[in-house]
Amino acid sequence: MTERTRIRRLPQKAVDDRAVLYSILDLALIAHVAIVDDGQPYALPVGCARDGDQLLLHGSKASRLFKTLSSGVPCCATITLLDGLVMARSAFESSMHYRSAMVLGSCVELAGEEKKEALEKITQHFLPGRVAELRKSTDNEFKATSVITLALVEYSVKVSNGEPDDLVEDLSSPIWAGIVPMTHLWGTPRSAANLAEGITPPAYLANWPTGRA
Amino acid sequence: MTERTRIRRLPQKAVDDRAVLYSILDLALIAHVAIVDDGQPYALPVGCARDGDQLLLHGSKASRLFKTLSSGVPCCATITLLDGLVMARSAFESSMHYRSAMVLGSCVELAGEEKKEALEKITQHFLPGRVAELRKSTDNEFKATSVITLALVEYSVKVSNGEPDDLVEDLSSPIWAGIVPMTHLWGTPRSAANLAEGITPPAYLANWPTGRA
Repeated sequence: MTERTRIRRLPQKAVDDRAVLYSILDLALIAHVAIVDDGQPYALPVGCARDGDQLLLHGSKASRLFKTLSSGVPCCATITLLDGLVMARSAFESSMHYRSAMVLGSCVELAGEEKKEALEKITQHFLPGRVAELRKSTDNEFKATSVITLALVEYSVKVSNGEPDDLVEDLSSPIWAGIVPMTHLWGTPRSAANLAEGITPPAYLANWPTGRA
Repeated sequence: MTERTRIRRLPQKAVDDRAVLYSILDLALIAHVAIVDDGQPYALPVGCARDGDQLLLHGSKASRLFKTLSSGVPCCATITLLDGLVMARSAFESSMHYRSAMVLGSCVELAGEEKKEALEKITQHFLPGRVAELRKSTDNEFKATSVITLALVEYSVKVSNGEPDDLVEDLSSPIWAGIVPMTHLWGTPRSAANLAEGITPPAYLANWPTGRA
């Protein structure tokens, strides 16, 4: 944690624990990555995965975002998992249950064997079990994809998972108070329109983790 | 749309339709809002709601983010709804189903009656049906909350909801291909630990929209 990542608002929700950071990143599929261009900030959704103490981001080599990130400019990657709504007895104390992580730093583009391994880790993260049955990527596909890493060095983590924090004088209110959890669940797989008959969804889908967002 | 919001990557997924923008914002609970401070971009999750052609953001008056946003600096608010994973016959063509919106501009802080109405709209958006049964906010609560608006003028919208876009030579692959949808669902309400006995969750919870993230 640095002065730039010190949590000032609701510091009691700050979590100084690398294991919690990892647990958030291990569920996350999308990071919102912010860059600055000509004084204007941009935040864009990017597919992400964790590899040890690195956050992997992947996208098109031709994209403006990845060209900019690869040049090593300062960036910020933020991941938020929404876990539910807190219905307190007042609008003011009502809030959300969430887990969020913000990582600051500069990205480094991967190449060669490192890039190849990172791409497999990304596929494994998004589609656990899929790597083994996919054909190998072609050279053109490999070249068209950019993989960059952001070191998990300067970060903050915030977790909100508590009870409604009502004023004492509101506790006698006759209205319901509590938590409405939100779950992120995989639905029934839908076969591609051009799938040959007789091919069924892979069994490993049943093992996919929920709670992802 | 401006040059700053023209979608360059996968432009076929760009949607130039205000109704689609509104439909995304009307489901969204969290926007990732990016600002620049001393050359460093920051992206932070913020509770959001739409009011006509304005995006409403609310947070603590004391927060650094809201102080910065209220000063009218350039910002970016990005909303992403993750709808599923596209399992193509190659890693390269595998992707996500999503709806995302990016809004650029400068925020304006609300005060007085406008702020009061905006706060009710935010509560109604987050907790539909709740406003009628909540007590009125106190003056201190009202003062401690900041509500700012970002005009929906300069924005881009991207929707990915298609079939796996495999290479022709991959169509004879023996592996399954298709879409694994992701749903965002409300779970069973959990009463606050200090809730008086006999108070049950409100009936309006059954009418809450799903698909939110």
